Order: sequence, then structure tokens, then C-alpha cells
Amino acid sequence: MMKLKELAIQKLKERGVEITDIADIVFELQKKHIQDLTVDDCINTIDSIIEKREVIHAVLTGIAIDEAVEKNLLSEPINSIIKVDDSLYGIDEILPLSIVNIYGSIAFTNFGHLDKTKPGIIGKLDKLGKDNKQCHTFLDDIICAISSSAASRLAHKNRID
Amino acid sequence: MMKLKELAIQKLKERGVEITDIADIVFELQKKHIQDLTVDDCINTIDSIIEKREVIHAVLTGIAIDEAVEKNLLSEPINSIIKVDDSLYGIDEILPLSIVNIYGSIAFTNFGHLDKTKPGIIGKLDKLGKDNKQCHTFLDDIICAISSSAASRLAHKNRID
Amino acid sequence: MMKLKELAIQKLKERGVEITDIADIVFELQKKHIQDLTVDDCINTIDSIIEKREVIHAVLTGIAIDEAVEKNLLSEPINSIIKVDDSLYGIDEILPLSIVNIYGSIAFTNFGHLDKTKPGIIGKLDKLGKDNKQCHTFLDDIICAISSSAASRLAHKNRID
Amino acid sequence: MMKLKELAIQKLKERGVEITDIADIVFELQKKHIQDLTVDDCINTIDSIIEKREVIHAVLTGIAIDEAVEKNLLSEPINSIIKVDDSLYGIDEILPLSIVNIYGSIAFTNFGHLDKTKPGIIGKLDKLGKDNKQCHTFLDDIICAISSSAASRLAHKNRID
Repeated sequence: MMKLKELAIQKLKERGVEITDIADIVFELQKKHIQDLTVDDCINTIDSIIEKREVIHAVLTGIAIDEAVEKNLLSEPINSIIKVDDSLYGIDEILPLSIVNIYGSIAFTNFGHLDKTKPGIIGKLDKLGKDNKQCHTFLDDIICAISSSAASRLAHKNRID
Repeated sequence: MMKLKELAIQKLKERGVEITDIADIVFELQKKHIQDLTVDDCINTIDSIIEKREVIHAVLTGIAIDEAVEKNLLSEPINSIIKVDDSLYGIDEILPLSIVNIYGSIAFTNFGHLDKTKPGIIGKLDKLGKDNKQCHTFLDDIICAISSSAASRLAHKNRID
Repeated sequence: MMKLKELAIQKLKERGVEITDIADIVFELQKKHIQDLTVDDCINTIDSIIEKREVIHAVLTGIAIDEAVEKNLLSEPINSIIKVDDSLYGIDEILPLSIVNIYGSIAFTNFGHLDKTKPGIIGKLDKLGKDNKQCHTFLDDIICAISSSAASRLAHKNRID
Repeated sequence: MMKLKELAIQKLKERGVEITDIADIVFELQKKHIQDLTVDDCINTIDSIIEKREVIHAVLTGIAIDEAVEKNLLSEPINSIIKVDDSLYGIDEILPLSIVNIYGSIAFTNFGHLDKTKPGIIGKLDKLGKDNKQCHTFLDDIICAISSSAASRLAHKNRID
């Protein structure tokens, strides 16, 4: 699994996403809820999430679809529907459920919130995708999922009772 | 089913929620996306949602739990956990999935967003519940679900291609 | 959390479910997939699942609803709809998603399968509930969820690559 | 939408799935529950399901991924993971949730059941995929989803109260 995990992290990097970009989003989500939270705590939590097989599969599959669409390798009309990130195309929000579901309700509600507000790297990816040179239709939602899952895990870990 | 639907609407009213309260939230969500949208369009859409058996069941079950908790009828410690709306208690966000799921991805992401931002009647219910005289732990999430589902249905209906 | 976990196990016992009853189902599900699997492995896995806060919450909430319905404490008509376990009432299959989701796709597909085939204690609870002296509308689905989650966890743990 | 619907049906046919193949599965699922059910009723219900935009998107996306994998167009190692239909790869069961969720709990439990029992065309696709000449990793689960959704819709439509 170690190899797969490192590959997922490398793939994220190739597509423009550093772990610290995700950590910034997580920190913003949880700093008001967790006293003394540091960006390093967020990085460690993200790291433990990208270790899970189901998360790695989601990351690699989402990026593979985005890359195939970028190169027009999928049959039409679905290649174009994904490329323009049609607002009624919802498969890109379904696939990351394989990440979000694992981390429970707090992950789930934060996911929807991030998808609407698009902070940091999420908005950047969305914009790059909409500019149509690149396709990040699946990746931006996967980053929403990893971020919201990390927020949820931190919330659960910081409960002491 | 007609009788069950009217009962659901009456129960919502008894617990402090008018259909127009929900319509206000839906209108705010969709007014920037749908030209010439009126609050009446929102009311009609909400009406069509509360007609579905699975939605009625969710509304009646959620309110029944809230009422039972208010009267301390459930066994402890779950009665207290629900009453204080513990932030790590997530069943109240799971139950409304029976509504949200029916209306697809737009419903799903708006649900998470409303759960975080708590506009209008949602915030009012949340506050009343936290003040501990009443229990709206399930109801506020059900209103999030009906609102986000109505937003999704409007988005789909207004696509012409 | 220790106390809550023990309470959940005790509540299951009070409602007629021993951990070994669940282990028997898990063993049947996974024995053909995992060499040298023992019932003890299944018991240990179930034990680790009932340790999670979201699982405990689901168990305690589901049983609390069943008990309240048994004593006719919820308002009508929802008390009767739950009591007869109406085939179109689906909230009892939604609530255990808070367990199943955590354990991924294998948990999810096994859940549906167990819900249809009702082996062992699941069928026994279903029958006791339908006989109408007791109400197990939520509990039988929760046992489906714990069993299928244990099966999924065992499958993932036994992959070595 | 009409054109997209016909395209989805044509794509299914190209990949070896006739609407009547799906109807056979639906008929077997529901014949014991619905008096006087005919295969034609099942065909009409399937037809109404494939009309929905979210269903069409799922069908076209799933088949597009299968076809890309067959031609080794996705980056490795995910192309191989999907091609061998790894038992711990669960994205193929997540994507069809965009269909199943719309049709509620009965769709959801039947989905898991069909995924385990693989009747008719589902088993045939699974076998063809495992033989490794073709890839049907996503398609077989999409057929499970359409079949179980049709079963659920029929169950709801045949309730008269």
C-alpha cells in the first residue's frame, strides 16, 4: 500500500495540489473548534487519510478521468459534458462519497459546504478547469472530500470523553 | 397519501415551520441561478417534494423523535445526547439523506452548505433547540434537506436542453 | 467512550442480540473468502466496530426508537407505521448507513444482501417484530449494518499487498 | 434530453445489454410482491428510469471508463486495478449510487443483493469482464442499479393507499 499512497500524493502534486494546500483548508475549517490546532496537525491527519485504500482509489480514479477528458480520450458526448463541468453533471460529487462516507456526518456536511464556497486550492482548480485548458472536474471535489474528512477526523480525535 | 401529506405539513406548522419559511431559503439559494424565479415557484416545488412518501416518513419520524426527546421519553443516555444536539452525534444528518438522496448531487451539496450556514428558520430552530426548552435536533436538518432538494429540483426543471 | 460501548453491548443483549449471534453471520459471509477465518476473529472485529462513537449512537438511537414504538410513545400515525414495519417505510434502512458508510463498498453491498436474505438473528428479530409483540424495525437493520461492516473490515485487513 | 436517452440505450446495446435483459431481472425481483406484474410493466419502468439525466450521466460515464480501460487509455496502476475488477476496488459500486439513491431504500437494499447474487445479464457481464477480454467493471454495477431502482419504483407505484 505504501507505494500506492506515495503515488497518490505524487499524482496530486502533478495536478497542482500540495498537501499543504489541503492543510490550509482544513485549518480554516477547524481552528475555531479546536484550541491550539496547528497546520502540522492538519498535515498529519491528511496523511493518515491518504493512507486508506479507498481514498487512494478515489484519488487515482478521479485524476485518471480528468486526464483522459483533457486528452479527449472518452467517447462523446460524455467527454464534453465532463470537460465543461456541466452544473447538472453530478458524478463528480458522487465519486468522492467513497472518501467522505468513511469519516461520518461532519465530513459529509463540510463536503457540501466546501463544494459551494470553494476556498483556496479548490477554487483555483475549479477556475483552471472552467478556463478549459485543463480538466479538474473530479479533482476539485476530491480535494473537498479529503479536506472535509480531515476536519471530521480532527473533531472526533479531539473529543476526550 | 393525501392525508399523510397534510399531516406532515400540519406537524411542521405545529413545530414552528411554515412552508413560506422554507421557500425563503430556497429562493435565496436559487435566485442567482434562475432568471425570473419567484417565491411562488419555490412554494410549488416544496409542495411537490412533501408529496413523496419517503419525505413524509422522514418528516414524521424526525419530529416524533424530537418530541419524544423533549418529553424525556427515550432511554438515557441517548435522550440527553439528542437533546443537547452533541456535535459528534450525526444521526440527525443521516436521517434526512432519505430526502436529499432522491434529488441528486445538487441537493446533497446544498444540504451540507445549509447545515453549516443555517439561514432563516434553520438557524432559528437550531437556537431554540440549543436554548434547551425545545428539541429540534432532527427538524433543523430535515428543513435543510427539504430546502436543498427543492433547490435541486428547480435547477433540473429549468434546464431546457 | 468505554462506558458508552459497554452500554451499547448491554442494550443489544437486552433486546435479544449476543455478539456471537452477529459473529455467526459474519463468519458465514467471509469464510469462503478468508482462509483460516475463525469465529473469534469475527468477534474481535465486531468488538472494534462497536467501539466507534457513530456506531454506538446508531445502536442506541435505533433501539430507543424501537422501544418507544413498543410502548406506543411516538405520535400517530408514525408509531403504527414503524410498528408494522411497513415495506415502504425506509428510514430503518437509512439510519444504519451511519455504520455501513464508514466501512466502504463491501459493507454497503453486504448490507443490502443481508437485508434481503435475513440469516440467523436478523430473521429471528424480523419475525419477532412482525409477530407484533415486540418492535425490532430498526434493530434488525442495525444488525445487518454491523455484520456487513465486520465482513468488510475483515476483507480489507486480510489483504496483504 | 431525448437524444441523450437514446444514446444511453444504444450504448448499453453496444456493450451487450438489452432493456429486456434488465426487465428479466426486475421481473424476478418483483413478481412475488406484485400481482399480475408483466415483463412489459418492467420494460416501461426501466424506460422511465433511463429518462433521468442523472441516470444517463451514470450510464455514459461508467461505460466510458470501461471502454477507456479496455483500450488501456487510463494511467497505471489504476487502469489495471479497474481491469481486473479488484475486490477491494469499490468506486464501481459508488458511482451507481447516483442512480440508486434517487429511488430510495428498496432500490438500495436490492442493489446490494443483486451485486452479490449476480443474476442474468449481471453475471454474464461479470464473467466476460473477469475473462479479461472485455472490461465491464462499472457496467455490471450500473445494471444492478437500474434493476434495483426499477424494482423500487414498481413497489411504490403499486401501493394504493
